[in-house]
Amino acid sequence: MQILDQKISIKGVIPPMVTPMDTNGEVDIQGVEKLVEHLISGGVHGVFILGTTGEFSSLDIAQKKELIAATCKFVDGRIPVLVGVTDVCLKGSIALSKFAERSGAYAVVAAPPYYMGIDQEELCHFYGQLADSIPLPLFLYNMPSHTKVSIDVQTAVALSKHKNIIGLKDSSANGSYFQSLRYYFNDQPDFVLMVGPEEMLAETVLMGGYGGVCGGANLFPRLYVKLYQAAMAHDIDEIIRLQKLVMTISQNIYRHGGYKSSYLKGLKTALSFSGIIQAQFAPPLFPFAPNEEEELKARFSKIASMIIE
Amino acid sequence: MQILDQKISIKGVIPPMVTPMDTNGEVDIQGVEKLVEHLISGGVHGVFILGTTGEFSSLDIAQKKELIAATCKFVDGRIPVLVGVTDVCLKGSIALSKFAERSGAYAVVAAPPYYMGIDQEELCHFYGQLADSIPLPLFLYNMPSHTKVSIDVQTAVALSKHKNIIGLKDSSANGSYFQSLRYYFNDQPDFVLMVGPEEMLAETVLMGGYGGVCGGANLFPRLYVKLYQAAMAHDIDEIIRLQKLVMTISQNIYRHGGYKSSYLKGLKTALSFSGIIQAQFAPPLFPFAPNEEEELKARFSKIASMIIE
Amino acid sequence: MQILDQKISIKGVIPPMVTPMDTNGEVDIQGVEKLVEHLISGGVHGVFILGTTGEFSSLDIAQKKELIAATCKFVDGRIPVLVGVTDVCLKGSIALSKFAERSGAYAVVAAPPYYMGIDQEELCHFYGQLADSIPLPLFLYNMPSHTKVSIDVQTAVALSKHKNIIGLKDSSANGSYFQSLRYYFNDQPDFVLMVGPEEMLAETVLMGGYGGVCGGANLFPRLYVKLYQAAMAHDIDEIIRLQKLVMTISQNIYRHGGYKSSYLKGLKTALSFSGIIQAQFAPPLFPFAPNEEEELKARFSKIASMIIE
Amino acid sequence: MQILDQKISIKGVIPPMVTPMDTNGEVDIQGVEKLVEHLISGGVHGVFILGTTGEFSSLDIAQKKELIAATCKFVDGRIPVLVGVTDVCLKGSIALSKFAERSGAYAVVAAPPYYMGIDQEELCHFYGQLADSIPLPLFLYNMPSHTKVSIDVQTAVALSKHKNIIGLKDSSANGSYFQSLRYYFNDQPDFVLMVGPEEMLAETVLMGGYGGVCGGANLFPRLYVKLYQAAMAHDIDEIIRLQKLVMTISQNIYRHGGYKSSYLKGLKTALSFSGIIQAQFAPPLFPFAPNEEEELKARFSKIASMIIE
Repeated sequence: MQILDQKISIKGVIPPMVTPMDTNGEVDIQGVEKLVEHLISGGVHGVFILGTTGEFSSLDIAQKKELIAATCKFVDGRIPVLVGVTDVCLKGSIALSKFAERSGAYAVVAAPPYYMGIDQEELCHFYGQLADSIPLPLFLYNMPSHTKVSIDVQTAVALSKHKNIIGLKDSSANGSYFQSLRYYFNDQPDFVLMVGPEEMLAETVLMGGYGGVCGGANLFPRLYVKLYQAAMAHDIDEIIRLQKLVMTISQNIYRHGGYKSSYLKGLKTALSFSGIIQAQFAPPLFPFAPNEEEELKARFSKIASMIIE
Repeated sequence: MQILDQKISIKGVIPPMVTPMDTNGEVDIQGVEKLVEHLISGGVHGVFILGTTGEFSSLDIAQKKELIAATCKFVDGRIPVLVGVTDVCLKGSIALSKFAERSGAYAVVAAPPYYMGIDQEELCHFYGQLADSIPLPLFLYNMPSHTKVSIDVQTAVALSKHKNIIGLKDSSANGSYFQSLRYYFNDQPDFVLMVGPEEMLAETVLMGGYGGVCGGANLFPRLYVKLYQAAMAHDIDEIIRLQKLVMTISQNIYRHGGYKSSYLKGLKTALSFSGIIQAQFAPPLFPFAPNEEEELKARFSKIASMIIE
Repeated sequence: MQILDQKISIKGVIPPMVTPMDTNGEVDIQGVEKLVEHLISGGVHGVFILGTTGEFSSLDIAQKKELIAATCKFVDGRIPVLVGVTDVCLKGSIALSKFAERSGAYAVVAAPPYYMGIDQEELCHFYGQLADSIPLPLFLYNMPSHTKVSIDVQTAVALSKHKNIIGLKDSSANGSYFQSLRYYFNDQPDFVLMVGPEEMLAETVLMGGYGGVCGGANLFPRLYVKLYQAAMAHDIDEIIRLQKLVMTISQNIYRHGGYKSSYLKGLKTALSFSGIIQAQFAPPLFPFAPNEEEELKARFSKIASMIIE
Repeated sequence: MQILDQKISIKGVIPPMVTPMDTNGEVDIQGVEKLVEHLISGGVHGVFILGTTGEFSSLDIAQKKELIAATCKFVDGRIPVLVGVTDVCLKGSIALSKFAERSGAYAVVAAPPYYMGIDQEELCHFYGQLADSIPLPLFLYNMPSHTKVSIDVQTAVALSKHKNIIGLKDSSANGSYFQSLRYYFNDQPDFVLMVGPEEMLAETVLMGGYGGVCGGANLFPRLYVKLYQAAMAHDIDEIIRLQKLVMTISQNIYRHGGYKSSYLKGLKTALSFSGIIQAQFAPPLFPFAPNEEEELKARFSKIASMIIE
């Protein structure tokens, strides 16, 4: 197995890979293989497994390890694999990070512990202990809607002094916050700032961001890669054209059914229409009702026909 | 080992037991034994381990199992042991529940999955799957400040139809919510409604509640037992007298230092002054600075002298 | 017009009076008169106009003055009139307080300025300026769900040193918070602590509170007065019996239709069934649809028949 | 007085004008004149008075009218004047809108009523009533952090059908939300979408937005105008250069002192250093302590020297 040089900093479109599941509630290894090939052939610059989109919180440790091992095996060093190790328990994050390293992952990604409310000081302490204890570089993961705590810009700046902390993925959707990060990290070009919401990929790259962790790239990897390239090339007309497609996906697939979990349900179900994965979820999520699925299928077909990858 | 009859419904003061830790970050088994004896000799009606106060989210599975086994062994059937099995992963909750059953626990307690935002429908689905899959009766655990979702009164009513769901612990501190539960469960006296914040123990018992999960009972178990008894006896003068002591603890120990985690830091550190446990925590928490600890000690001594148990 | 002695501190059931409106969107003066008589004959210990239940935020200054003058005239010194002067603009609060004083009101009530997010220091400053500038005693009004800021217990303690600040109405529904107030004000029996949610009237009076600002007392004033008296007498059996009726109102009238404004819509519409007021609202609220109203009427009749005042 | 053609849709940099106050707590008319000249000579495309930055909520009606009349007089038709008429009371918004029209304003701007929690349906109803009743075109103003309700994209789409509703100012800072607006209004180029946070001006204009309501433009109007022009011209290098200055202001002036109100305190105090206004505020805000002000002055001088307008 080929190991990537972690000195080369990551950039571009890194899909937060959904976790293919089967009807028994287990990881669908065949689905993982198909999805990895689909993404790599779409030109993505890396994959991020076990993020929020990957339902990390709903999987047990054995399933997480299975997914890490399978993904690294199928990717086989062609692109960097980032592994989510977010856990409320520090020991759990460390153990998973070590497994990720042995499996050939490029880096790990961790959101703050998300049960107890904690202060920035406790947050710094936690990330410091984690970064000290793991054999892979670490991305901070700002996800305040889920973790109840936002990584303050000054906390991120302080943590970036740790040689093992190499970047931050911001899923807050807060444009002012992201620009504040950009401002403070202007002199640290090696510290990688990725944006979570795909609706903001183009603008943040235009303004100096490094790329995005775009859920929709599970479906249409090339579309997001093209959008990234257009943003890197400052090709505004092309950006506007592609952004419209990205928004069409976002508005039609991710809000379907009006569930709090519509994003995940819509994304995985749409991906099942292409035969790459099954529309299966880990609890507490469950599939759409048949009529909901049918309606989504009609929407998806229309969108797919608009996108000639 | 003696097994308790789960038909006898639980009532009274059930301390959410802190988890004694040592300086290596492991469960301090000797501390568990001392704490169990301290609580039982104080007259508590049960213990609840691996709750929020027990830092459940910060422990790994091995530590949780060690704590469950040790607690059940030391308690040895003298009082019911309730085990927190809250987990973002259903499989994890089920596995821990099975272990708790084998260890001799009386029941399990689970808060909603706390990472993803979910709807009431998904919440019902999740609790139904959990209750179907475990060999012990289940308490619902409402903790919206930590889980971001409140168990709607109607959701609780629907779930109470499941024969394996036997009660609800409400830690919302919302008096109107608790009274709504009381109203809807008026005709189901077997469904146990316990209140979380100890500041509300007396009033909820007066109004027909079943007791409380009082963190301060780790420190002064007999005080809370007496308060419960006074409330059961409708002895308002005694209630007012004891409530003042309970509030003195709450206002002086749980806010010390102004941390988000002051409650836990204050409670465990105060308990260390009696030599029962060490002032050690699982990450992300860490001990008070020496001067903070010294100041707390002075406060604690003053309070302890006010309480002649 | 008779003026009440403000030295006699207020206690008991103080309904937050709804504001009777006509179909032209103006204050219905005849409705005010009928409602005042209904409340006084029901035995209430005061009335609080221009609170949240009184739709204060939706009325203009002329309407507020009209309501203050009419209420004071109809009450004619028989019970204390408390006037809500909550305003985002300090000058507005002061002007209305002066008008209230000239009209014969007993005291004013003010929630924090509710547009800008402010600190406790700014809150202290604001309340200090207000209390310095008005000719009537002032009640603080804690309403964090609407104002986005909670009056910290220590802020309330500091403000209580002002000779013109005589009490606090807490509508947070947080039982722990209310007990903290009780604890810190234990030695200041003249500082009046009233509770907002009527579901918590009985328990807070049992625990030493001074009474409640009960919306339902607009409908059935005598019921809430009896509940208050039972709580003062520590008559738990009677409390339990009356509490059930109070909860029946709360669960059946205030949640009707599932609107965010269901409490206000339900309360005023139910009151219209007795012919005391019209089911009219100030914008942004609007009446129930006819079928919603019809269903509420059926519920209300059933409840009314349960309550023999 | 010259009246602008409201058919010409507004674009560019529209500073949310601070309200100059004197030491007596009254509007400083001389300050208004100086500020208007400062802004117009800086090339701004309009001014927006009585927004959040204009402390609208802290002023009484007489002060608001005085400010409207003075601003319109001093502007004298050279640029459009937008007037904030946000009020919890519909009648208040209508009355102020009529006054604005008589004074020569171009349009009015209204955030949702911000005391009661309301639904989207109630929000639509409210905005419909307002738009029906006023003689000027209306901008919706999305400000969820202050109003507790976000204007759903679909609500905005529905309201845009009203001929009197001509645009939306979004101060949510949520980049995904703004892109959703852009997507749905793609076919309605006359519906003006302005962004609130100045940190997001460049990126939203690059992506097709119409401009920004930039608080910092009170200080350095030309800087923001240049940034807008660079964004319109797709001149990324110039954008990056100017954005750095904009962020320097944002990070050094608006967070000074760590108050919740630091933005407003910092902005007005910095503007006082140029002698244009006094560092005076309407309650509940109050000036910085002398040492805080001194420190800000040092920061401001440094920034001013970096910006050669």
